[in-house]
Amino acid sequence: MKVAGKHYRSLWADESQGVIHVIDQARLPHVFETATIASAEAMANAIRGMRVRGAPLIGVAAAFGVALAVGRDPSDESISRASALLRGTRPTAVNLAWAIGRMRERLAPVPLSERLVTAWNEAQAIADEDVALNEGIGRHGLAILEREYAARKRPVNILTHCNAGWIATVDWGTVTAPIFMAHDRGIPIHVWVDETRPRNQGLLTAWELAGHGVPHTLVTDNAGGHLMQRGLVDLVMVGADRVSRRGDVCNKIGTYLKAVAARENDIPFYAAVPTPTIDWGIEDALREIPIEERAEDEVRIVRGLDAEGRFGEVIIAPRTTRVANPAFDVTPAEFVTAIITEKGVVRATEKDLLGFWPRNRESKAYLT
Amino acid sequence: MKVAGKHYRSLWADESQGVIHVIDQARLPHVFETATIASAEAMANAIRGMRVRGAPLIGVAAAFGVALAVGRDPSDESISRASALLRGTRPTAVNLAWAIGRMRERLAPVPLSERLVTAWNEAQAIADEDVALNEGIGRHGLAILEREYAARKRPVNILTHCNAGWIATVDWGTVTAPIFMAHDRGIPIHVWVDETRPRNQGLLTAWELAGHGVPHTLVTDNAGGHLMQRGLVDLVMVGADRVSRRGDVCNKIGTYLKAVAARENDIPFYAAVPTPTIDWGIEDALREIPIEERAEDEVRIVRGLDAEGRFGEVIIAPRTTRVANPAFDVTPAEFVTAIITEKGVVRATEKDLLGFWPRNRESKAYLT
Repeated sequence: MKVAGKHYRSLWADESQGVIHVIDQARLPHVFETATIASAEAMANAIRGMRVRGAPLIGVAAAFGVALAVGRDPSDESISRASALLRGTRPTAVNLAWAIGRMRERLAPVPLSERLVTAWNEAQAIADEDVALNEGIGRHGLAILEREYAARKRPVNILTHCNAGWIATVDWGTVTAPIFMAHDRGIPIHVWVDETRPRNQGLLTAWELAGHGVPHTLVTDNAGGHLMQRGLVDLVMVGADRVSRRGDVCNKIGTYLKAVAARENDIPFYAAVPTPTIDWGIEDALREIPIEERAEDEVRIVRGLDAEGRFGEVIIAPRTTRVANPAFDVTPAEFVTAIITEKGVVRATEKDLLGFWPRNRESKAYLT
Repeated sequence: MKVAGKHYRSLWADESQGVIHVIDQARLPHVFETATIASAEAMANAIRGMRVRGAPLIGVAAAFGVALAVGRDPSDESISRASALLRGTRPTAVNLAWAIGRMRERLAPVPLSERLVTAWNEAQAIADEDVALNEGIGRHGLAILEREYAARKRPVNILTHCNAGWIATVDWGTVTAPIFMAHDRGIPIHVWVDETRPRNQGLLTAWELAGHGVPHTLVTDNAGGHLMQRGLVDLVMVGADRVSRRGDVCNKIGTYLKAVAARENDIPFYAAVPTPTIDWGIEDALREIPIEERAEDEVRIVRGLDAEGRFGEVIIAPRTTRVANPAFDVTPAEFVTAIITEKGVVRATEKDLLGFWPRNRESKAYLT
């Protein structure tokens, strides 16, 4: 999508130089910067520090991380080491493990001398497929927004949480793809953007929506229930870091509160996810998905611009105050109206989701 | 309660000087300061700017504001003007209107020459009664915590939202009174403290709990649902800015989300409120209570300490981003397990609450 009129992907490869360029999300939306990543270690650090973030994007980033490792040393041991390092950066999202598994499976039978070219090609294929996945989600989600608009004949009010936008993917975004497409077709949309503490990824969503001209309003994470009660939300749409085979949605902390309130207020709740986000090996997400506990300082320290317009931070809680910072929660399938994927929109049940079970060669990677 | 070992009330009168001293809550918990207020106008500004805040405390503060106006000019017109000014500062809490109504009713029949003494005495009576109300809430709430502990034989985990602590009242606090009393009796308590964006009043609660030695953990507003799902919350206890006669609870934005999640997880949800917070003239809080919409900058600007330990702020969202900032929401009575008052603990129904209908002389003030 565009940043100040120029088209960007959130990550792009320079194979000739053996480096990856990324939009550095650490200071967004305050400062727009790109970074160059030249090793698997640097990629792991970027993912861990959430300079590269978003479940789909970190899968692609990890695939390129493996390619960078192959560039240094194409041996099985090198690939193994890089894979473990990259996989350990974030425990909750499944795309990371999926993309690494796919790289390993692709590289294993290839002679050492051909591994570099294969690795770059495979990582690039994963990146290009991600763009196509999001376009597919966009088309299927668009149909939902068209229906909502046809029924109401006034702007459709969508509430979203965290950032499932184009910079959380390679391009388009999962939640933003249908929104951008609807906006481009003249369907009036208004998005309530949850701030999404502690890291305020809602500001990334607001930045993306502003870049595309989509009307939106920033609210605190506390406001959504009130807005639903007052009839100001027509539907909730979020991304996901992992979806279980029966349709439980693991996503940014706070998603569950919105889902419970949505059901209470008869408001549809959608998760927009590419099918690689479905973890076929997980049935009960509450019991089986590890929830990442992140650093206390993410809650304690808030970043923004100071009075002089410089990037700065303030400490909102004393060091002596104990902080808990679970990064994700699980919304059980019963609260999910439907899951919007690149293959279609389905109810959040095992029976319906199994229609998307991958039957092709790559399928084994889904189960690693 | 104590601040660094010294006993304070959140507000105290110096009748000889004709001024009111308050703990200035604008920079808490980062900077502890007191302020001196010498006019009704200054008191109105302090309430509007939330330097003096908390539903019970702003009632007391407004009563003293009327007394300050009487000190300048004891006429009916002066009292009327000050009352309108003070009442207009915050539209949602009922205590403000209740305390001002009580002052006017008390002063109306008094000769001009005696009004000053009467005003100071009446305002001081309201302040002293507030302390007694909170002590009463503490005793009744304590019984609930004792029961919870007896049933579990491990620390009782309480989740609270916003600040219904002693600095939101004259002393003790509504939610904190039972917690302090339980802690003092050796009942192990652990409090999950919601940050409470946009103004982060949870940090005030954490500061109060730390001052009294009560174990607590700060979490973002997004975390509560996840904690409930995992069995880490035994009960939710919040204050209220206004309670309808049938038991709807109007409180800080975000309370409703916690109440819905609590019911979903079979966790009791209590509102701890003095009976003057019950608005007998309101039946359906969702339709009848005005929800204050506060400034966009409360969401945009976050305050804390900078790297040098100085009080500072950062702007987290661009000026071009539209912000909505509803300050309160309504939790319908069906989500409220019980209401803890100074007169006892009752179910949130009109039938049960009507047992608290004031029958004494002051009762008319409740209906103004």
